[in-house]
Amino acid sequence: MKRSNGADETSMKMGEHKIIEIICRNIEHMPNMAAPFGDDVSALYLSDNKVAVLKTDMLVGKTDVPRGMDLMQAARKAVVMNVSDFASKGIQPMAALVALGLPEGYSEKDITEIAKGLNSGAREYGAFIVGGDTNESSDLVISVMLYGIADKSSLILRKGAKPGDILAVTGFFGKSAAGLRILMDGLKAPKGADKLIDAVLNPKARLAEGKALSNSDAVSAAIDSSDGLAWSLNELSRFNDVGFLLDNIPTADETREFAEFNKLDPVELTLYGGEEYELVVTVKPDKWDIAKEAVEAAGGQLIKIGKVLSEKENSWSSDGKKKLIEPRGWEHFKTHL
Amino acid sequence: MKRSNGADETSMKMGEHKIIEIICRNIEHMPNMAAPFGDDVSALYLSDNKVAVLKTDMLVGKTDVPRGMDLMQAARKAVVMNVSDFASKGIQPMAALVALGLPEGYSEKDITEIAKGLNSGAREYGAFIVGGDTNESSDLVISVMLYGIADKSSLILRKGAKPGDILAVTGFFGKSAAGLRILMDGLKAPKGADKLIDAVLNPKARLAEGKALSNSDAVSAAIDSSDGLAWSLNELSRFNDVGFLLDNIPTADETREFAEFNKLDPVELTLYGGEEYELVVTVKPDKWDIAKEAVEAAGGQLIKIGKVLSEKENSWSSDGKKKLIEPRGWEHFKTHL
Repeated sequence: MKRSNGADETSMKMGEHKIIEIICRNIEHMPNMAAPFGDDVSALYLSDNKVAVLKTDMLVGKTDVPRGMDLMQAARKAVVMNVSDFASKGIQPMAALVALGLPEGYSEKDITEIAKGLNSGAREYGAFIVGGDTNESSDLVISVMLYGIADKSSLILRKGAKPGDILAVTGFFGKSAAGLRILMDGLKAPKGADKLIDAVLNPKARLAEGKALSNSDAVSAAIDSSDGLAWSLNELSRFNDVGFLLDNIPTADETREFAEFNKLDPVELTLYGGEEYELVVTVKPDKWDIAKEAVEAAGGQLIKIGKVLSEKENSWSSDGKKKLIEPRGWEHFKTHL
Repeated sequence: MKRSNGADETSMKMGEHKIIEIICRNIEHMPNMAAPFGDDVSALYLSDNKVAVLKTDMLVGKTDVPRGMDLMQAARKAVVMNVSDFASKGIQPMAALVALGLPEGYSEKDITEIAKGLNSGAREYGAFIVGGDTNESSDLVISVMLYGIADKSSLILRKGAKPGDILAVTGFFGKSAAGLRILMDGLKAPKGADKLIDAVLNPKARLAEGKALSNSDAVSAAIDSSDGLAWSLNELSRFNDVGFLLDNIPTADETREFAEFNKLDPVELTLYGGEEYELVVTVKPDKWDIAKEAVEAAGGQLIKIGKVLSEKENSWSSDGKKKLIEPRGWEHFKTHL
């Protein structure tokens, strides 16, 4: 795994934004969409308050499949990546379609593993694989499209955060970043290495949490954290024209121990990790208790990490000092299976 | 372009079938789907007689983009491939999502061309690009997912053909096969080369025809012909446990002239071409006139080419002799942009 320095990462991310911006500029936009272009999902009205929700996200072997991840895990991850976006909007996925690009020479066992991984990723979250397409390609490519139906009013968008809202997340960060360092760079963990590696190989989408938050009507904006917590904050900041001040960096205990053991910065692993599928949400302050109880009733946790500010700057405070959160994430790891 | 011999092609196609069969065997199937797994589209009930229709098909540069096709045409084709499947079921597409895998080094101009091609492919058929995802990959990969809403009763399936039904197509074949020979092998055409090349670079989906056929209620089964006419017949045969006897091989005039000039077999180009997006349908005999008039009123044509037989064998008759139609198509052309 190559961890980027700030400049590289920003240019990579700028590149992706630039690509999306160019595409946006050159297509005719559908009138009256239920979620703005660029949000985590697309939503189309079925009636006044029913929407069809659609999402596509592609897994590419060389950038999304780290050393140590098998085909079943890769296929499952391709589905989970998409489910996570549904989770961040509070939407139950119903069905997935999968377009596969397979390198030459895959065996029946390989295809079976892929099928089982796809099925597992879908069924864990109540969805079914309902169709697809197979092709030959140089890379392993697993392009998943997810579909669901929801009340328009239940859809949590990226836009909606207001100054004064509470910033919260559904779990502690940095486990995947640490796990990747173990898998890719051979670093050691003092204990709990299995848990760190498992975070990479078997990521979980926070669907129950997202649905509970949607039902609670307490959340003003949400996004998942697949590109890293810092990057998610940057996106929420951009969509809402607000900033964030974090007073509680949500580092997982295992990550802290791993960082200490390897003389790494736990904050770096927490903020600029990625390949993590927690939800990052802003909660209306008078509804904090409702939101927290709803998530806990769904078996999850909601951790207060800071607040929304009107000034468009993201920072975290430590020992009374304020440090800027940079708009960067984790560079994809460039390793073939 | 490498044209396959029968054995290679069959094994390639067997491979694709085998892959789909393995996947089918290893996933849990959604109960009560409105179209069977393996049909050209997936369909999920929204109510007793409303269905959401979904389709995904992936374009891969090295197998789907012939020499001479630019990025705008490739992107447009990626959408048209999917629209053609909707067309074969008689369904109007509403929205498309696109997951892009882009090789390193694509310029702003390249991305602009891709965006314009996607938009053009969608808008020509009344759909909008509503979302997507970008990634880095070795090949150019354009994975399109199409969405629409329809009455369940309007959905034409692959299954439904009965012995005695009339076999018909929406256009003449072999233009793409000839155009590919011009583009890839440098063959010449006596006249109409532009038309043959255009069939490859700017394929059209028969959406108006498919919708007209759906409304006519005269069609018992349908499929598109993207893998070639022979292959489509093989699929319809497999789904319906029937056979076909063709007494009218639908060779385009330009293809006949091209074949004659180059001493090629026009029937080979017609049956075993591919990259063509005509519809192949079976029509209830007492509703032939209704079907034909409906397609003509939509600006298209419906050409009777044979009939459905109970014996599961596909053949064509010529000068009183019967020749078997082999279950093979056209091998994908392996050329990078």
